[in-house]
Amino acid sequence: MTSVGLRVSELTTPAFLVDKAKVETNCSNMIDTCKKLGLKLRAQTKTHKTIEGAVLQTGGSKRGLVTSTLQEAEFYATHGFDDILYGYPFIPFHLPRVTELTRRLEQFHVLVDSALAVDTLAKASPPPGKAWSVFLKVDCGNKRAGVWWEEDGGVDLAVRVWEAAGVTLAGLYVHCGDSYHAEHHDKDTSNAVAGAGDGGKEGEGESAGWAEGPDKVRDQTIERLLNFAGRVREGGVVCPTIGIGSTPTCSRPAPNMNQLTELHPGNYIFCDAQQVSLGSCQVSEVACCVATRVIGHYPHRNQLLIDCGFTGLTKQGMDQLPGGCCIFKDHAHLRLSKMTQEIGFVDDANGDQLEFDKFPIGSLLLLLPWHSCATAAMYSVYHVMVEDEVVDEWRPTRGW
Amino acid sequence: MTSVGLRVSELTTPAFLVDKAKVETNCSNMIDTCKKLGLKLRAQTKTHKTIEGAVLQTGGSKRGLVTSTLQEAEFYATHGFDDILYGYPFIPFHLPRVTELTRRLEQFHVLVDSALAVDTLAKASPPPGKAWSVFLKVDCGNKRAGVWWEEDGGVDLAVRVWEAAGVTLAGLYVHCGDSYHAEHHDKDTSNAVAGAGDGGKEGEGESAGWAEGPDKVRDQTIERLLNFAGRVREGGVVCPTIGIGSTPTCSRPAPNMNQLTELHPGNYIFCDAQQVSLGSCQVSEVACCVATRVIGHYPHRNQLLIDCGFTGLTKQGMDQLPGGCCIFKDHAHLRLSKMTQEIGFVDDANGDQLEFDKFPIGSLLLLLPWHSCATAAMYSVYHVMVEDEVVDEWRPTRGW
Repeated sequence: MTSVGLRVSELTTPAFLVDKAKVETNCSNMIDTCKKLGLKLRAQTKTHKTIEGAVLQTGGSKRGLVTSTLQEAEFYATHGFDDILYGYPFIPFHLPRVTELTRRLEQFHVLVDSALAVDTLAKASPPPGKAWSVFLKVDCGNKRAGVWWEEDGGVDLAVRVWEAAGVTLAGLYVHCGDSYHAEHHDKDTSNAVAGAGDGGKEGEGESAGWAEGPDKVRDQTIERLLNFAGRVREGGVVCPTIGIGSTPTCSRPAPNMNQLTELHPGNYIFCDAQQVSLGSCQVSEVACCVATRVIGHYPHRNQLLIDCGFTGLTKQGMDQLPGGCCIFKDHAHLRLSKMTQEIGFVDDANGDQLEFDKFPIGSLLLLLPWHSCATAAMYSVYHVMVEDEVVDEWRPTRGW
Repeated sequence: MTSVGLRVSELTTPAFLVDKAKVETNCSNMIDTCKKLGLKLRAQTKTHKTIEGAVLQTGGSKRGLVTSTLQEAEFYATHGFDDILYGYPFIPFHLPRVTELTRRLEQFHVLVDSALAVDTLAKASPPPGKAWSVFLKVDCGNKRAGVWWEEDGGVDLAVRVWEAAGVTLAGLYVHCGDSYHAEHHDKDTSNAVAGAGDGGKEGEGESAGWAEGPDKVRDQTIERLLNFAGRVREGGVVCPTIGIGSTPTCSRPAPNMNQLTELHPGNYIFCDAQQVSLGSCQVSEVACCVATRVIGHYPHRNQLLIDCGFTGLTKQGMDQLPGGCCIFKDHAHLRLSKMTQEIGFVDDANGDQLEFDKFPIGSLLLLLPWHSCATAAMYSVYHVMVEDEVVDEWRPTRGW
């Protein structure tokens, strides 16, 4: 049963809504940013995992993606996409599926950061007429996967890829994940708080060395990556692609980016309250929200209950915002203070008396989530909206 | 493609595993507990949302469930279950689906805690030959949904149900959700920490008034509920069922429980690290885990990476346990310190040097989750295991 044609007031809640105009604008803006910089855009699909989203991200070309799971890569391959990077450290267990994708696609790339990965590929035969196309993941202080940029072992691994039979070095890849834990940037922060961290826990201690927010992360990452690329090239290795990603860094075009060849942000397609708090976007650019209904009034504790618990939003970002872990659209004074599996507990952020008659049982509230990648992952369908009418449904792939 | 017959080492990871023997024992133990107390068991299905799990919970009778979503109620109705309570505050928007379930089932019950809900049912016609069967939700200090036990308005609402045309009062229902935030119970806590809260945030301040853990929550809830029931009955209202739920309270049979008529716990089917920390079960009784693979060694920061990020576990319970938000089976010294969408970052809990050769790339680790309801919700299939072989697949329903 399709929801197309329904009004938001007719949808079962909680429901994940995508604003058609905003999502199109977010995608075309990132395409324009890359065009102006002379860089290729290799869009990360993990935020949405849909066909329709990836068509927008590639400007209709269906070429140039990076995925977070093999499942996504296979999904996009099946739907006519090509030039896909499985942007995750390759392990030998994945060889059969990686072999099949290499066979099916004109350009399928894997990511490596270990000698074991390179040697596994070198020992295996690529499909007839193909070579293994490999990106080397580099850690430029970002503390994710990747070879450490300062260590010679990383350069040695690039050489190992370069010299391995049947293996092609496609390029170098960095994810600036630490830009999510950098200090607050002062752009549009009317709904944001300083020092945003992902879930309030994992960011601790990660910003050591980054003093000036995502700009500094971006600049130091580029400087270190170019240093690493220079040392790789000194060994006679040809390294066609050099790219960085993350929405906080890629939403800040800077002149030094022209020394790269590609960018691979992902979250920008939807954005979220976290991106607002990092200065990557304005509240008005957030292209997704969760629709939820008021299910009860509890005046003896000055509280509303809504039908959005952690299965509808996740607990990520709890206490990061005045609104709890979300921004209540048109009701900035509301705060999601607690969630159980299917229920959200809403207080007044300032401790004022709630005006219950303004929130009748059954009425709708719209929540801009802290982390749209996490929230979208809770839904099997996204309702694409023009104003308050559903005009399309996007169905993401899930699993690994 | 079925996973039945595969070894755990052949599964795509992350994977959600259910131990067949343990899940059967957990279910039969709760049935026995209720039998000994002379109480009916109305099992909550929200932890697993599967047919097979509900068959075990009902001892094969397929009678006597409480669900957290309408989707679950419809799923179970379609698969031959009956005597189902949709254990969620009824709102008028749900009337069409509630009507259809009332028509289909011999016994379908809804939960109310507002005059609006009661009046909506009273004004609507139940299906031919049926009455609306209603449980009144009561808040006995548990701070979830429900009428406040001390207030006369709650008693008035019970009378309103009793007197409404076409409406039957099935009973009183309390969820002891606050038992998750009560003080630590001293049972088997070798892997547990004191003062466990759900996510470290939402429990704050909730245990005010509960001094001695889940036992105290149970006893005070029962005392208050019986007080409320007495006041309801004084008005001439017949109230057949009086029940409480939550695994921490129901895993502690106590003499005063024989004044109730039913229990409705749910998490006990799987249990999890949170239940261990609350003293509801032992580590050996936890019937589910996540299988994950080592994907990289990062000796320059003394860290392993695994292929289980927040889409495979959720971030709930972060920093609640020595193992982060999970218990590493057979490796108590490991700690899941951080998660991105698809990657977990594993440190030594004591800051000791990791022995990387004990955790080769591709090797498996098993994680007992902090909150199995949340972790299970991330999977579309559960692999049911006898030792290390998959013997069955359970496929949960999702959505609302």
